Amino acid sequence: MKNRVITISREFGSGGRTIGKLVAKELGIPCYDNELLIKIAEESGFQENYIKEAGEYASGGFLSNIFSRREASPNNADYLWHIQYRIISELAEKGSCVMVGRCADYILKDKADCLKVFIHADVAFRAERIVKVYGEREESPEQRIRDKDKRRAAYHRFYTDMKWGHAQNYDLTLNSGTLGIDRCVDIIKGLY
Amino acid sequence: MKNRVITISREFGSGGRTIGKLVAKELGIPCYDNELLIKIAEESGFQENYIKEAGEYASGGFLSNIFSRREASPNNADYLWHIQYRIISELAEKGSCVMVGRCADYILKDKADCLKVFIHADVAFRAERIVKVYGEREESPEQRIRDKDKRRAAYHRFYTDMKWGHAQNYDLTLNSGTLGIDRCVDIIKGLY
Repeated sequence: MKNRVITISREFGSGGRTIGKLVAKELGIPCYDNELLIKIAEESGFQENYIKEAGEYASGGFLSNIFSRREASPNNADYLWHIQYRIISELAEKGSCVMVGRCADYILKDKADCLKVFIHADVAFRAERIVKVYGEREESPEQRIRDKDKRRAAYHRFYTDMKWGHAQNYDLTLNSGTLGIDRCVDIIKGLY
Repeated sequence: MKNRVITISREFGSGGRTIGKLVAKELGIPCYDNELLIKIAEESGFQENYIKEAGEYASGGFLSNIFSRREASPNNADYLWHIQYRIISELAEKGSCVMVGRCADYILKDKADCLKVFIHADVAFRAERIVKVYGEREESPEQRIRDKDKRRAAYHRFYTDMKWGHAQNYDLTLNSGTLGIDRCVDIIKGLY
């Protein structure tokens, strides 16, 4: 099996993004994460900060839109989804790369030789990590994790109909808390 | 992290048992699979064939017992569960080993240095494999897979309250269909 694209889905704070960057660096291929945001911003006209949230997380408005779906016309989230879908497909055509988040696993499922990875860890590990990486906030780290995970899963489920975090959707899933970031990098690299 | 015990949960036909045996052989440690059956049979007085089913799969009787749980006294499945629980705990105390199935992941979660693995594959891969390994049956291989998976998940859920196949319950999950049996063996061995 020749895997041209590695997609990394991840729980908030699990280090999935860091793992993606390290894998890409060691393999000498690009890692698309913020680069995706910038491209989507350029094409859509939305600000990067808006896309960061709206292109991966279900918001209150997003959820109320689901419930009134029958009458709703396409909204910002749908518009972003289509741009995101096209940009991810085009980048995968261009060459080998790592893609972090943004439902790339689903978008590329029939289009590329894809190694689909999911990174997770328990809440304690992630809580400690997000305070280190992103600093303190008014909300507790545990609350931030619950909120982000829930909204990410809802977004993923709505656009892909895949259950987020179910082993069956991935080639491999790794617990970065028990295995450690470096070991996760080695395993993924070894499968490329 | 020093992992003394490797537990392997698996979808029916995914090759989890084969992977467990190969890992154990290459590491020079015992793999408990049929050996568990024999021990449970000796202690419980039940026949091995009965335990093979009742100690891992929800049967019709098992399910009806769940629904009438309030009035039910402990039944055969509960009795077997307690023997299984004790035998698995004792074997893990004795030394490093691989344990296949039988909720060992849950039983050992606080008792041993444990690497918890889940092996799965898509239905087409498993259907082909079970016909090769176990031969043809009157039921279609797809039907056999659906039935076994459903009953295994129900049993696991009832005794452990863990959702079977959720990435979050394991250190790693591997798709033996896309990665191949040998690569799964190598990854697990490398983490020992």
